[in-house]
Amino acid sequence: MTVHRVRFLPDDKVIEVPTGTDILKAADTAEIKIKSTCGGDGSCGRCAVQITEGNVEIRDKGNISRKHQVAGYVLACKTTVNSPITVTIPEESRVEESQQVLIEDEDLVVVEAGNKKVNGYDFSPLFKTVTIELEEPTLTENSSDLHRLIAEFKRKIGYDNVRVNLTVLKDLNSVLRDGNWQVSVSYIDFGDRAEIIDIFQRVDNDFIGLAIDIGTTTVVVNAISLETGETIASAGSYNKQTRYGDDVITRIVYASDTEGGLEALQKSVIDTVNQLITEIKEKKYLDDRSIIGATVAGNTVMTHLFLGANPKNIRLEPYIPMFSDVPPFKAKDLGLVINPEGYVYNFPSVASYVGGDIVSGALAVNLHKSEEIILFIDIGTNGEMILGNREWMVCCACSAGPAFEGGGITHGVRAMTGAIEKVEIDPQTFEVELTTIGSKKPIGICGSGLIDCLAKLREVGIIDRAGKFQSDTSSNRLRKTEDDVEFVLAWRKDSGLDSDIVITESDIKNVIRSKGAIYSGIRTMLKMMELDETILSKIIIAGGFGNYLNIQDAIKIGLLPDLPIEKYEFIGNSSVKGAKVGLLSLNAWREAEEIIGKSMTYLELSVGNVFMDEFVSALFLPHTDLSQFPSVVN
Amino acid sequence: MTVHRVRFLPDDKVIEVPTGTDILKAADTAEIKIKSTCGGDGSCGRCAVQITEGNVEIRDKGNISRKHQVAGYVLACKTTVNSPITVTIPEESRVEESQQVLIEDEDLVVVEAGNKKVNGYDFSPLFKTVTIELEEPTLTENSSDLHRLIAEFKRKIGYDNVRVNLTVLKDLNSVLRDGNWQVSVSYIDFGDRAEIIDIFQRVDNDFIGLAIDIGTTTVVVNAISLETGETIASAGSYNKQTRYGDDVITRIVYASDTEGGLEALQKSVIDTVNQLITEIKEKKYLDDRSIIGATVAGNTVMTHLFLGANPKNIRLEPYIPMFSDVPPFKAKDLGLVINPEGYVYNFPSVASYVGGDIVSGALAVNLHKSEEIILFIDIGTNGEMILGNREWMVCCACSAGPAFEGGGITHGVRAMTGAIEKVEIDPQTFEVELTTIGSKKPIGICGSGLIDCLAKLREVGIIDRAGKFQSDTSSNRLRKTEDDVEFVLAWRKDSGLDSDIVITESDIKNVIRSKGAIYSGIRTMLKMMELDETILSKIIIAGGFGNYLNIQDAIKIGLLPDLPIEKYEFIGNSSVKGAKVGLLSLNAWREAEEIIGKSMTYLELSVGNVFMDEFVSALFLPHTDLSQFPSVVN
Repeated sequence: MTVHRVRFLPDDKVIEVPTGTDILKAADTAEIKIKSTCGGDGSCGRCAVQITEGNVEIRDKGNISRKHQVAGYVLACKTTVNSPITVTIPEESRVEESQQVLIEDEDLVVVEAGNKKVNGYDFSPLFKTVTIELEEPTLTENSSDLHRLIAEFKRKIGYDNVRVNLTVLKDLNSVLRDGNWQVSVSYIDFGDRAEIIDIFQRVDNDFIGLAIDIGTTTVVVNAISLETGETIASAGSYNKQTRYGDDVITRIVYASDTEGGLEALQKSVIDTVNQLITEIKEKKYLDDRSIIGATVAGNTVMTHLFLGANPKNIRLEPYIPMFSDVPPFKAKDLGLVINPEGYVYNFPSVASYVGGDIVSGALAVNLHKSEEIILFIDIGTNGEMILGNREWMVCCACSAGPAFEGGGITHGVRAMTGAIEKVEIDPQTFEVELTTIGSKKPIGICGSGLIDCLAKLREVGIIDRAGKFQSDTSSNRLRKTEDDVEFVLAWRKDSGLDSDIVITESDIKNVIRSKGAIYSGIRTMLKMMELDETILSKIIIAGGFGNYLNIQDAIKIGLLPDLPIEKYEFIGNSSVKGAKVGLLSLNAWREAEEIIGKSMTYLELSVGNVFMDEFVSALFLPHTDLSQFPSVVN
Repeated sequence: MTVHRVRFLPDDKVIEVPTGTDILKAADTAEIKIKSTCGGDGSCGRCAVQITEGNVEIRDKGNISRKHQVAGYVLACKTTVNSPITVTIPEESRVEESQQVLIEDEDLVVVEAGNKKVNGYDFSPLFKTVTIELEEPTLTENSSDLHRLIAEFKRKIGYDNVRVNLTVLKDLNSVLRDGNWQVSVSYIDFGDRAEIIDIFQRVDNDFIGLAIDIGTTTVVVNAISLETGETIASAGSYNKQTRYGDDVITRIVYASDTEGGLEALQKSVIDTVNQLITEIKEKKYLDDRSIIGATVAGNTVMTHLFLGANPKNIRLEPYIPMFSDVPPFKAKDLGLVINPEGYVYNFPSVASYVGGDIVSGALAVNLHKSEEIILFIDIGTNGEMILGNREWMVCCACSAGPAFEGGGITHGVRAMTGAIEKVEIDPQTFEVELTTIGSKKPIGICGSGLIDCLAKLREVGIIDRAGKFQSDTSSNRLRKTEDDVEFVLAWRKDSGLDSDIVITESDIKNVIRSKGAIYSGIRTMLKMMELDETILSKIIIAGGFGNYLNIQDAIKIGLLPDLPIEKYEFIGNSSVKGAKVGLLSLNAWREAEEIIGKSMTYLELSVGNVFMDEFVSALFLPHTDLSQFPSVVN
């Protein structure tokens, strides 16, 4: 097998790869992150790189302009190495590390009437540690080490059913004797029985549990003292799976259709989580053994991939996930770098597109305990939502598409430095004033920017209610292209790119479809319960997108119901917050499993006509039925 | 690191080893089995080999005679390789493969009144398989694959608590769909709950369980159909641990005092078991996945080593084992070459020297269900015994020493081809007639031969009641040596060795101590219960040694109580038989755990004076108190 040197610039990293390796893969090996929204099938065009030395084989030119082709630009995913080469990676093709990851690190434990409470639940972690003192054995009291330990352990924790693993067994005699018959025993508490995870010579330091949120885009790990409930450290980063595509569908396709794809996706997410755990361990001088368990919340596809289960049927009618709830699995079976005998609890999911992250979110906001009716909504590629209170809950997922995360939009980007998040348009001159994240030169427009942009374009009359540009607009910013119409948000001279930044009519259509899907989902749930928007006492918006969202704008374009702004609430990363609640309270975990996971009614929007009728009506700004948006009309 | 070629003759096997490797280890690497009773500390002298080419470093000459030293003989354990060498292995230093391993392969299932029974218990294996047919999912009946499977599985087996492992989960969607929603589910049945081990596209072939006996000397594996209970194959061989010493004490020392010793011992026994499993798999065309569980019976030390637990405290007062009963462990955690998610059940032990093999044996003979009082006795290096009936059970272990297995006896050997098993001595001429196993030239004397030999030496008056040779015996077979007196059993010309085969006064003392220990153990148990021998309705003798034992001889030398011969019964390998009973009946397994393992009273012989008094009285042939042996006196 011939191998070739590949040098990446400006990083100046050099690696060797076999002939025929694609550049996207080579970059991945060199740990350089290149955008690849489509998962490497050549369609998104985000992975353009410049070959500045050597020869390559170009399998598909993709959408690279002739001018750029001449300059050596190729699609990294469709170009393979067959000689020593140098590759220069343009800034816009790089996954930016400065993208904002919401690291939730709030402490949730409070003391009420002398009792520790977590989000209203009794403090009683899934994983615990007790100190045990044993009598030394004698010739007449000569029961085995294990028997001696278990008898006292049972007495101390009050359970009769106690299991032990092989690792604990192997070292037991030394630990007991070296520890002078005083030991710390860490265990998983099942509520009515226990399993000993590890046994230590008596120590006073803390044992740690992890609350983990595995998002399609970002992963967050919180390390929590199981003694105090305090969050001692947290870390977040992008999910390494993004190398295989931006959204869950691309990843399902990659897992199902590519040889070794499932394994690569599982490895990516485990690597991501392990890297964050390692970061925390180094920061807090923790060793593997002291981290004795974790709770994990992720959407259904993420949970499948985390466990190495092929999610392919999630994408195929009738959209069946392989599992909804699973028992806790050992850390060693997943390869997490914590105590190998520690356990990992995965939040149950409700359906293929309503996952453990939503169940965890409901736990975080105590939706299932609310007197009044709440709408909980997590807007990402999918809009996942729960409507209900302590008596009933209904949930659904609508495919919003990637527009709000910058996908499928000409200059769409995620909420990263340089992303346009606010747009002002002068109603007379149609001149534009932009606000970007980090106040840098604009490099694209993110979800909240798009919503604001549509609201403003409509406000000043540049687009009509159907989202079509008004050709009589007198501005050089509005121009025709070969097969579309576009409006220039930033001229090339003002932009951080090598081009104008525009929004096209197709982009607007995409955003309208996205907002229409979300709004129709909400309407369909309300209709099913024979309710209308006014019944809602609170609308809780979760997730990173929510954090930057302007509610007024969202109502103006018909994304969210036209309700008083004070009814809206942002919760941030509700998924990791719920994971923390579950970790710290056995009762909370049980309610997540029993009440939220099992009693929630899932509404499959593709069954029946209600959703489709609502969707068609919602493809206007704000809506076909203006009576639903009185504040926008006036 | 320098490596050297080592050629072994007459095998003509060549391997390479690093400088400084001892020849015993090199032989082991080449899979040539050399005797090593002492575990490689140079004291037993059994590992003598001849260096026929090249140079070696001799660290200890041991007991090799000058003549043999000149001929190039060295101790394999005390000689290291520092050049390319050729080693010739004499027949007497080799562990003979033809030694007899008792491969129990009896079928235990019978049909009584239309119900399958195993040794009186209902047939209900620990591991089972059911066939499940599922409805295909639809958009409205869209529960997850796992939920669908578990719901039907619960309905079918009638348990509400069902667990599943990660391996099953990973493949579930394919197996269900490829199998057209008809699958076989193999599971471990806990009596009130179950864990799914594996799931297959519907198949009609058998699933297999293993019954395994791990003896200090030999290992036996029976493969049993979990459908019919039939023993479909069996295999036995020597425990590869014998390379590290013949008895449990040597192995404990090796495990505790040698770096990496515990790991080496665990690997040896796992290798032995895996080799036997592989033999069975090849013979019966089985794959790993179809073998879904095992029961294992071994003495306490063997069970510790099998699980990788350091047995060191078993040897140190107050003789505490690390565990007596353990939960079932996964095959993959032990490295057995069966279904990795399958489970291995280890029989509980009662004490450090009354192990799972004895519990298993009691289950095999239904001692705990007997109306009448039974004595169960397993004679090996230790004499382990149980006395009792369905109302009470008491057990003990007495250190018989290795004499009955050929250890510590000048020409002692195991029951192998060429071993003297019967001795006739002419009362006038004192001429000797020998019977050997396989009718080969004698190479030594085994346990049953020794007992016969003592009985005959006493009968013809060559030794007195204390085991001392009578100097007035007129035979050239009786002769003085430097520091002992010996009697020639076979002259060099008639022997399979390069020397006379003798029995010395020290040998006789050793045998007397061994038989005295066993008899005193029996007496101590009876005394504790305020009973005497006549109460015994049956004496069951287990183990390989029992199979060759002449009861008359054993009574004559005072090894066994003087009772009518028809009260004696041989059971063969009761350990593997009990393992089979436990495998095939959940109730039997529970009784082994609950009744036999936990309710048996263990009598520690080193506490109090009763045993020591009895032992001193038993150091005569047959006994100090002749009234205990009326048939011998008359």
